Amino acid sequence: MSLIVVGSMAFDALETPFGKSDKIVGGAATYIGWSASNFTRPIHQISVVGGDFPQSELDALSARGVNVEGVQVKKDEKTFFWSGRYHMDMNTRDTLDTQLNVLANFDPIVPDSYQGCEFLMLGNLMPGVQMRVIEQLKVRPKLIAMDTMNFWMETAMEDLEKVIAKVDLLFVNDSEARQLSGEFSLVKAARSIMKMGLKYLVIKKGEHGALLFHEDKVFFAPALPLEVVFDPTGAGDTFAGGFIGHIAKTKDLSFENMKTAIIVGSAMASFCVEKFGTQRLKEISKADIDERIQQFVQLVNFDIELV
Amino acid sequence: MSLIVVGSMAFDALETPFGKSDKIVGGAATYIGWSASNFTRPIHQISVVGGDFPQSELDALSARGVNVEGVQVKKDEKTFFWSGRYHMDMNTRDTLDTQLNVLANFDPIVPDSYQGCEFLMLGNLMPGVQMRVIEQLKVRPKLIAMDTMNFWMETAMEDLEKVIAKVDLLFVNDSEARQLSGEFSLVKAARSIMKMGLKYLVIKKGEHGALLFHEDKVFFAPALPLEVVFDPTGAGDTFAGGFIGHIAKTKDLSFENMKTAIIVGSAMASFCVEKFGTQRLKEISKADIDERIQQFVQLVNFDIELV
Repeated sequence: MSLIVVGSMAFDALETPFGKSDKIVGGAATYIGWSASNFTRPIHQISVVGGDFPQSELDALSARGVNVEGVQVKKDEKTFFWSGRYHMDMNTRDTLDTQLNVLANFDPIVPDSYQGCEFLMLGNLMPGVQMRVIEQLKVRPKLIAMDTMNFWMETAMEDLEKVIAKVDLLFVNDSEARQLSGEFSLVKAARSIMKMGLKYLVIKKGEHGALLFHEDKVFFAPALPLEVVFDPTGAGDTFAGGFIGHIAKTKDLSFENMKTAIIVGSAMASFCVEKFGTQRLKEISKADIDERIQQFVQLVNFDIELV
Repeated sequence: MSLIVVGSMAFDALETPFGKSDKIVGGAATYIGWSASNFTRPIHQISVVGGDFPQSELDALSARGVNVEGVQVKKDEKTFFWSGRYHMDMNTRDTLDTQLNVLANFDPIVPDSYQGCEFLMLGNLMPGVQMRVIEQLKVRPKLIAMDTMNFWMETAMEDLEKVIAKVDLLFVNDSEARQLSGEFSLVKAARSIMKMGLKYLVIKKGEHGALLFHEDKVFFAPALPLEVVFDPTGAGDTFAGGFIGHIAKTKDLSFENMKTAIIVGSAMASFCVEKFGTQRLKEISKADIDERIQQFVQLVNFDIELV
């Protein structure tokens, strides 16, 4: 059970139709770490923060079994900052401010103690940074999964294509899948994206669930219908964290087990959106997670006898 | 197995990003009849058409086991006409033209031979017309289901509320559920709408599937991810037709069987969108339907063991 997680650790300032957050801790690797550590430990984190990042947050992750040896702390610089405002549908948002700070020149270093890990989760980051992590690994992991975003498709497509060709599984959302493929139909988009060198593709549709593609197979998992989506920030990362955490725990790369991983990821994401930032992820227990997964079973389970 | 279907029979002229139709036969009751007749016969149709409506279309429905005794033919008037243009996402459309014609003064008459039917499907129509059908039935059906649309919420809300209070099950799409309840969350919207006097509520989300609510239970069925959505016209009616057809066939009003009905309806809708109008519905066989339902099972079936 050894998993490396790479991604940003950040400050976010969020506005939603339901409220406004202070500057709170976020970032892809933060959410992935909190989520995946429910299923597998230790997690080997690779990221970079500034001197302004609270030590207590790193300590809290350490206490969860997240090894932060690979998190560079640049005392004299500032942590990556993102500010955004969500629209009423909670699926779309405007970026209000982005300050790259320490991310601008991030050169990830894989500690020796991380070598030999079986699973690698590349959270959303500059494709070049994702690639430099892959290049440093002496033994190729059994599964490399990556997340990305539309911004890199617009500004670093060549680098992005190179990384995609090196990984097994890609997470994108529906609009990114359409952008990456130039296809409107998600089925056609998936087929086109898979040809970039992937074994698996996950298309996230926010409140409308997620699709898993592999060879000629497709699996769909819904999102749990929720009364309140308080803050969708980090939901995609939390989903990926639950997914890769389950895979690292079970070490089973069958399509059947990937389906389970999608459900686990969906369950984790459904917690994430219930409060601002990582707050809800810090509260939940294994019993809460099991109960939530059971709700997914209830939600989609049916038994058809064709007569 | 006796089902009454009420709704428009119409001419449609459609534009989609993939093509443009001539003036073709459509209407809620047309789609419901074609869809439901795969599962239960005879179907007792109630509608109104003008002298311009092709007799061949009524004959084709009759040959399917759809009794058209209750379809009034007004020789000197014109059939209801609707023209619309779909946007790229195929979930939104603009109405280009609406000519009520025979619908303007439609007074539905329930033939004596229809009395005693166990199931009633009220397709989208003026709420007052839906109500006049209910009032003529001497024995209340075991299940009354109805469809409606945003237009009636804006122009005949009082009448609409009266009909909803008389029926067991309501079909609406997600934006209509939000409009009807004033709630953005579909879970809250469902709770609020159920209080209008319903036992069951189905919220259709187009390409994003459908939700079934009953008491404190909820079931979600996805739409099949399709390569091409050629023409979404009638997909909601076809879904309702498959649903009520399965219910009328099985006469089982349990929540478990309603779940199956939702899957059957989703399978039928996935055929409808593959070609213009009712064309695809006229081609398919029982084997096609069974195979499509099996695809739904594959799409969402998973097996989780919590450890």
